[in-house]
Amino acid sequence: MTEAVTAAILVIGDEILSGRTKDKNIGTIADHLSAMGIDLSEVRIVPDVEAEIVAAVNALRSRYTYLFTTGGIGPTHDDITADCVAKAFGVGIGEHPEAIRMLLERIRPEDLNEARRRMARIPDGAELIRNDVSKAPGFRLGNVIVMAGVPAIMRNMLDNVTPSLQGGDRMVAEAVDAEGLPEGAYAAGLGALAKAHPGVSIGSYPSFSPDGFRNQIVVRGKDAGLVAAARSAVVALLAGLKGDGVPA
Amino acid sequence: MTEAVTAAILVIGDEILSGRTKDKNIGTIADHLSAMGIDLSEVRIVPDVEAEIVAAVNALRSRYTYLFTTGGIGPTHDDITADCVAKAFGVGIGEHPEAIRMLLERIRPEDLNEARRRMARIPDGAELIRNDVSKAPGFRLGNVIVMAGVPAIMRNMLDNVTPSLQGGDRMVAEAVDAEGLPEGAYAAGLGALAKAHPGVSIGSYPSFSPDGFRNQIVVRGKDAGLVAAARSAVVALLAGLKGDGVPA
Repeated sequence: MTEAVTAAILVIGDEILSGRTKDKNIGTIADHLSAMGIDLSEVRIVPDVEAEIVAAVNALRSRYTYLFTTGGIGPTHDDITADCVAKAFGVGIGEHPEAIRMLLERIRPEDLNEARRRMARIPDGAELIRNDVSKAPGFRLGNVIVMAGVPAIMRNMLDNVTPSLQGGDRMVAEAVDAEGLPEGAYAAGLGALAKAHPGVSIGSYPSFSPDGFRNQIVVRGKDAGLVAAARSAVVALLAGLKGDGVPA
Repeated sequence: MTEAVTAAILVIGDEILSGRTKDKNIGTIADHLSAMGIDLSEVRIVPDVEAEIVAAVNALRSRYTYLFTTGGIGPTHDDITADCVAKAFGVGIGEHPEAIRMLLERIRPEDLNEARRRMARIPDGAELIRNDVSKAPGFRLGNVIVMAGVPAIMRNMLDNVTPSLQGGDRMVAEAVDAEGLPEGAYAAGLGALAKAHPGVSIGSYPSFSPDGFRNQIVVRGKDAGLVAAARSAVVALLAGLKGDGVPA
């Protein structure tokens, strides 16, 4: 078993906090990291305010193996992520020749105005992340991966940066449907079972529809044998119970 | 103009971080707060780990007018939010008689086992938030509002707690479609315009589809006159420009 590889996500954008735009990137990145065995440990959403972004970048990059940011790397005045990341690291920032070359794959030289050149401003020491959708690159500085906020571009950048990331032992997750049993009927037994299986985490997740609750118990862990043993114990627990007609 | 009313959201749940469940509550709460004139200023998602929850509750409740939490108030062993909030405030926690009465609206006395009684554990001094969907209540302690994670229940609790919340001056938002103009064509003008209109915030939001980019410029502020003036300036800016064929 290797050491745990952890990550945080920092979503940067007033438009998410106002409710105007609904974030789709957190779920995409969470799924991607799970598949790589990287444990997503924290997410934050902050506004387009320099002090907030710098503080969050520094809090999260010092704590987790990787920090993924989304948003704020376009050409307009509210796109301040690259400058904030440079400030968080205490490094300079300037036009990156390779980023200019990437922009010129899509923009004629006479149209590469000052605003568009802003998209080539990259903190000193960063490596570019290719953007096959609209060319303006993301970048990686140390353990911080800076990506666009537009979901299609973010996904492309995430794919492009992935070969440079270290994966971890993959999390194995096994779901058991509670088959109509209410949480309150199995909660005590499940709590005891969780204590008896310390190598895994066991969660109970209700969802609610017009038909009533549907509960799933999920056993997660990095040791497939421990997960399988705990799953068997959950199945045995549920088989010994019956519903008491209470829907919760 | 009244003082700004601010808020944060704390989403509690391993299942969101693993990607298994996609959060729907952040967008719902963001829309609701916007309509009330409450400025959502930060969001965090943390795992079902006591130290993480306590630290986040204390960081956010001290900084914003309100903190809304979702998740972790059911009957199973992984539902630790109420205990964590009590710990964050340094107060005791125990069975709340009114919460027991609410549970008994749905659960027969003989079925009210120890696990289900956990849902009536409420920090000392908290007020209950009614849950018309499944009865187990949320609660409010000081400026912290603790709600369920199941979206239908969260929405009901949010509605039920709303009369006790102080709203703020409502944010006025006006969107201007860039009508095919690329961000890079208007970015410089928009940046100057934003500087000349300090009473509002102006954002440029690209979205991307197979047809290409579609950009919207959004002017937001609490003074409708300032927003209208800035919006007119944006419209005039765009009318004076034409696309240069660059899609970004």
